[in-house]
Order: sequence, then structure tokens, then C-alpha cells
Amino acid sequence: MNAEIIAIGSELLTPFRQDTDSLYLTQKLNELGVEISFKTLVGDRRADLTLAIQIALSRADIVILVGGLGPTEDDLTRECAAEALGRHLHRDQRIVQELRARFAARGWKMSENNERQGDVIDGAEVMPNARGSAPGQFIHVHDAGGEAIVLLLPGPPHELMGMFEEQALFRLRRLTPANHIATRELKIAMIGESAVDKRAAAIYKPRTDVETTILAGTPGEVQLHLRAQAETLEAAQKKVDSLAEALEDEFDDAVFSSKGESLEQIVGYFLGMRGATLAVAESCSGGLLAERITSVPGSSRYFVGGAVVYDNAIKTTLADVPPQLIEQHGAVSEQVARALAEGIRNRCKATFGIGITGVAGPGGGTDQKPVGLVYVALADDKKTEVVERKYPGDRDRIRHWATQQALDMVRRRLM
Amino acid sequence: MNAEIIAIGSELLTPFRQDTDSLYLTQKLNELGVEISFKTLVGDRRADLTLAIQIALSRADIVILVGGLGPTEDDLTRECAAEALGRHLHRDQRIVQELRARFAARGWKMSENNERQGDVIDGAEVMPNARGSAPGQFIHVHDAGGEAIVLLLPGPPHELMGMFEEQALFRLRRLTPANHIATRELKIAMIGESAVDKRAAAIYKPRTDVETTILAGTPGEVQLHLRAQAETLEAAQKKVDSLAEALEDEFDDAVFSSKGESLEQIVGYFLGMRGATLAVAESCSGGLLAERITSVPGSSRYFVGGAVVYDNAIKTTLADVPPQLIEQHGAVSEQVARALAEGIRNRCKATFGIGITGVAGPGGGTDQKPVGLVYVALADDKKTEVVERKYPGDRDRIRHWATQQALDMVRRRLM
Repeated sequence: MNAEIIAIGSELLTPFRQDTDSLYLTQKLNELGVEISFKTLVGDRRADLTLAIQIALSRADIVILVGGLGPTEDDLTRECAAEALGRHLHRDQRIVQELRARFAARGWKMSENNERQGDVIDGAEVMPNARGSAPGQFIHVHDAGGEAIVLLLPGPPHELMGMFEEQALFRLRRLTPANHIATRELKIAMIGESAVDKRAAAIYKPRTDVETTILAGTPGEVQLHLRAQAETLEAAQKKVDSLAEALEDEFDDAVFSSKGESLEQIVGYFLGMRGATLAVAESCSGGLLAERITSVPGSSRYFVGGAVVYDNAIKTTLADVPPQLIEQHGAVSEQVARALAEGIRNRCKATFGIGITGVAGPGGGTDQKPVGLVYVALADDKKTEVVERKYPGDRDRIRHWATQQALDMVRRRLM
Repeated sequence: MNAEIIAIGSELLTPFRQDTDSLYLTQKLNELGVEISFKTLVGDRRADLTLAIQIALSRADIVILVGGLGPTEDDLTRECAAEALGRHLHRDQRIVQELRARFAARGWKMSENNERQGDVIDGAEVMPNARGSAPGQFIHVHDAGGEAIVLLLPGPPHELMGMFEEQALFRLRRLTPANHIATRELKIAMIGESAVDKRAAAIYKPRTDVETTILAGTPGEVQLHLRAQAETLEAAQKKVDSLAEALEDEFDDAVFSSKGESLEQIVGYFLGMRGATLAVAESCSGGLLAERITSVPGSSRYFVGGAVVYDNAIKTTLADVPPQLIEQHGAVSEQVARALAEGIRNRCKATFGIGITGVAGPGGGTDQKPVGLVYVALADDKKTEVVERKYPGDRDRIRHWATQQALDMVRRRLM
């Protein structure tokens, strides 16, 4: 079976917006044994959208429409899908009531245009939206013209993903062939993409039964995606597992995750297991490290807190860095990184302290301390380790590299 | 005039790859007064690609094919474009000679399949590739069936951009109307999408000379994208500016940016203008506020630093919150938010202090203090304002809402 994804919205035809929803949908459909043969991006013009849906119906078994389900006049997916399918819309008063209750619960009055979100294509199953106002629709067409499945899904990623998992998946499973796909995702820290590929190729190339993709993730991370098909899930799993094992042997402790977990999740897992706690003092990374750590639910068990010490005086106020150390060596120095890690660790009474200081750019670089120079320190009760690195890329990438280095140092210390 | 971009390659139909070339091309075509009405992503299957080109020819004035010009069997763009146009291919021996010389210069022998890169569609102008082996092609169709322009461009971004600038641009300029496009992007804080639409519709609907798109951005932000065409840039600019002005009048101080700037940029701009400084103490947002503020280059001028006070003891250690206040009212309370804002402001000697405390979830909620409840406080030397909100959505969205509220409070205080 094949599918076409139609991403809807005039903003997707500007230079500023990228369709990302379709990447998620592609993965989910692949797992069902469905391939994507076309993706179409179309704006909010009625004729264009209707035409795009008609063409998709003529060349794909499953047509997935993403976006255009909002309450505004621009939101035409319901109307255009109905027209392309030659069906009518009816207003579902139960949906309208629910929408009204949703607004009332927030103390708002629902405007009349919101009622359009209750319009349902004849014969469609309504897929409730637990995260937003726009319900989705699932249509299984089987008439003289043939068979097709059409889905209407909301555009905001968290609404789309939630609805797909809870409402679309089981409906699609009933209608797609029982083909099983197993995947594994190895993540490797602090080795470059081409270096990884060079070492990995000899291992994965002979394994033609597994599809392997190497991807540069966020800075400091390379991902190996493994994917195999078989008639049973066990058989598919066995294929990817045996290749994953061989790759883990090759990359050893540089592999930080073998089932897709993020580095911050893994670090949290290790800290939790040891009953250890962490505190951070960040200069150039500006809170990104704390943000990454606390993005993991339950991180309050091992993360006590930290300081964002942008101003030099604050390095002293919040992390007890002696002012003369900054005067003598500069804020971006091994000594200050060390003092930050030790200072915040003592201040917060944590098992581990991290200190980060560097030049994130674009300004502020000098010949001696260029943009990209970063010092990362990790302190516990026995020792403090400091690493000096010169990271490539722009402000965002340098900040991300620094936090990746810090997390990887904690991981290695705990292994 | 309108255009369709077809991005070619099976990797674009996997969960791992994004088409980015089309963003560049969209911008360049917009500058020529050409709008993109469709983008299609298609794999390396001959029938699919030919069909996609035929459909594009039926609905667009300009069809831009990107990728599939390499030497391998998968590279079928030349063949499929010829078929869709009903023309033949001929092998251009001059191109083949140049390819051979290219290989010889590197000490390599050219394999026979590379000769396919010399295949040219009858009637096409060859566009040399200064950065790679695949030449591009430019076809101006004008026959009984109508008029169309077809471009074949290489996929690697640096080859694509170089060829477009040097070879495609002047050819397109001869054939496109001297049309200019101007855009504006208004951003509105802390008003819902449908409420914005309801108030905006009466203003933008009558203005059929400007295309207006309403977008829900990150939590707490709605964007209005305006776009107009005219024969001169000034005339186009006048159209969008007059509509932007009317919308700014309607939404007044909820409009925080009128040229696309982010809220953290605007807050930084205001703080910088006043010579004021900011310090933050974050509990549930875990560093996200500091991270957003410091993502702006030059933020060290006004952001002195802050504390991520996850653990209750750290709220005292780093932000001087009296422990009895936490005992009495709980960590998530108006009183603690106030104490965080005032404490961090005093500690860091900043003009403004922000305190955030709340329940980001998914765990930790109670009946009295449910997931989503957040207190945001803003302190200066005169007063401390505290806002209580109940945000919808998951952990990520609640954290983002909280930081958006905090930034918007600073902005309003400075206005």
C-alpha cells in the first residue's frame, strides 16, 4: 500500500516555513508497512487544494491531509475534501456543544466561526482532539470507483501526534497488511558523522537485510537508524538487534543510547540509579543545559538547580567564583570553569557540579579566545575535570555543543 | 505567474530527510514576482516522476525540477521531463567531453553511465554547473498547448544556488513580469488564534490586494503574515504597510513585533534602550526563560543572569526565598513567585527580577494545584506584579507558556 501526504497552508509555500509533520507521519506509516509515494504542499486556495486532493486520490491508497482544520475562513480542508470525494458536509451538533463547553471552561465565549469545526464529511468517523479544538476525520471509501482511506488531521505537531497515536493508528491497522517492521536507533556522542560512517560501513554494508541510515543529529550526536521487515515482529527484531549489537561493539562507550533515548534522559537515568544529584553553573550556554536536563519529566529527583552566570559579578554572587580569578585569567578560562563547577556544587550541596564558560559569538571573540572556544568542567567530591574545546558553527550550535559535552562528561563519569 | 517546485529523490520520502532547497528557490522566485502554488516531493520511480511533471505542467507557469540529475540509474529527471514534455533526448558530445576532462583532471577514469549526464532535452538550453558534474537545463515551451518554463536543477544546495544565480536568474528575468512582492509579519502575544482572527477578519478581509495568513506560533503567540504584489517594490510595500498599520491599531499593545522579531529580541531591545537589566529565578521553566533570552546575540548587555531553582532548598540558597514561606504556602504559590522575583533581583542587583513557579507535569499535580498552574512575578524597585495562570498542553507547552508570559510582562512594563 502507498500513501500521499498533503500538507496544507499558504505559510508552507513561503521561504519561512518547513513542513515537519510529514516526517513524523512517514515514520508511523512506514511502521505499518505503508510507503509514502508523494508529498504535496499546497496553500489555502480552494481550487488548488481540491485539485491536490483529487490527484492524490487517483494515485495513492491512503491520503493524509494535514492542517486547515481551524476555525478561520482560511481553513478549507473539510470543504475541499468533501468536494474532492463528491460528498456533503453536515454540522455535528455534539462537536459544537463540546467546543462551546471547551470555551466556557476557560471563561471565554465561543465565536460563531468556531462552529465550522463541527462540520463533518458524510460517512466520516470523527476523531476527537484531546489537545485542541479541531477534531479529525477518518473516511474509508469503498465504492464502484475503488477503495481509499482519507484522513483529516490537525497541523499543530502535538495535536497531530496525539490524535494519530490515539485515534488514527488502530483504524489504519485494521486496513493495512500485516507486515512487521522493527527499528533500532543508536546514538553516538562526540564523534563526527564521516568518522562514524567510515567505521560503521564495513559492519552495516554486508547486512542487506537491514536498511541503515546515518544521520547527523544535534551537534555532538550521530544517529544510526536501523530498520528491517519480516513476517513476524520477532524475526524483524532479531535482524535489527544483531546488527545493533555489532555496531555497539565497534563504538563501545561512545554509544550512549540504543533505543532512541536522548542524552539528557540517559544522564538522568544514571543519576537516578546512583541516587546522585547535579547542579550547573552556565555562562555561554545561558540556561540551555538546565533546560535540556529539566525537559525530562521527573528530573527534579536528581537535578537540584543551577545558576546562569552571564555577568561576571554574578559568577561570584551565585557560584562563588573568586573575582581575582576572573581578573587574572579572564571569564573564559579553565580556571573559571573549574571554579564554577566547584562553586555551584558546594553552594547547592550536589553530588556533581558542572561549569560552562566560553565564547558563543557572533561577537566577543579575540585571537586568543576565538568564537567557539568553550571550557566545560565537572566536579565531584574527589576531582574536577576540565575540557577545552573549539566548536564550529553559529551561536546556537556552539551553545548546543557545550551542553552536549557537559552531559557526556557526566555520563562517562557515571558509567 | 505561478510556479511549482518538484523535489526529486526517494530519500525525501523517508522520515529522516527534509527538502530545504525549495525554501531558497521560493525566496528567489518571490523576488521575481512569481508565487509558488504547489510543492511536490516525489521518489525515483519513473512513472511517479513523469506523472508529477505532467500534473505540474497542467497547473503552473513555471515548473522547477530539483535533483535526479546524477549519473546513477536512479537519476531519471532528464528522461521523465522529456517524456512529460513529449520531446526526445539527444546526447550532447561537448558535455560528455567536459565530463571526461573533469574526471581526468582528478586522475579518475569516467565510467560509462556518467555519459548520461550529457543527455539534453530537445530545445533545452544547457546551464553549465561550475560546482559539480550535472549540468542543468532550461526549456521555454511555447506551442499550441500554451506556454511554460521548465528548469532542471541539481539537488546539492551549493550547486543549486550557484547555478540559479548564474544561469537561471537572467533567463527567468527575461520571461517574468516585472512584479515585486513585499511582506510584513505581525506577532501578537497572549491572545488566542480564533480571537485574533475574529478581530482581524473585518480589517484584512476587505483588503483583497493583500494576502493575509494567520498562524499559531509557539504557545502564547499568533502571527499575521501579510503579502502583496505590485509593479514596484514601493507600491507593494505601501499595500502591506497600510494593512499592518490598521491591524496594529486594532490589537494595540498586544502586537509585540511588526517585522518578524521574536519576543525575546523585542524585550532585549527595550531593556537595552532603557539601560535596564534583568535577572530571573525559574522553577518549573527550568532554564528555558534564560535560554530564550540568551539565544539573542548581545544579550549580555541587559541579562545579568539567574537561577534555576528546582529543589526547594535551592530557592533559598540562590534566590533568598524564606523557607517558612515555602512551608506555609507551598513552592507553587503567589507568595513564592513574588519572593523569587524580588530575591533574584536583589541578589543580582538588576533593574527587573522575574520569578516563575508552577506545575509543568506530567506528574506532581493535585486538585488544588493542577498540572498547568503557573505563577509568574515581575519585580522592580517600585512594585511586584504576580500573575496566576492555568496553561493547557503538555510539559513543553506549559513551560513555554510560562516563559512567554514572563517576557510579555517585561515588555508591557517597559512600554
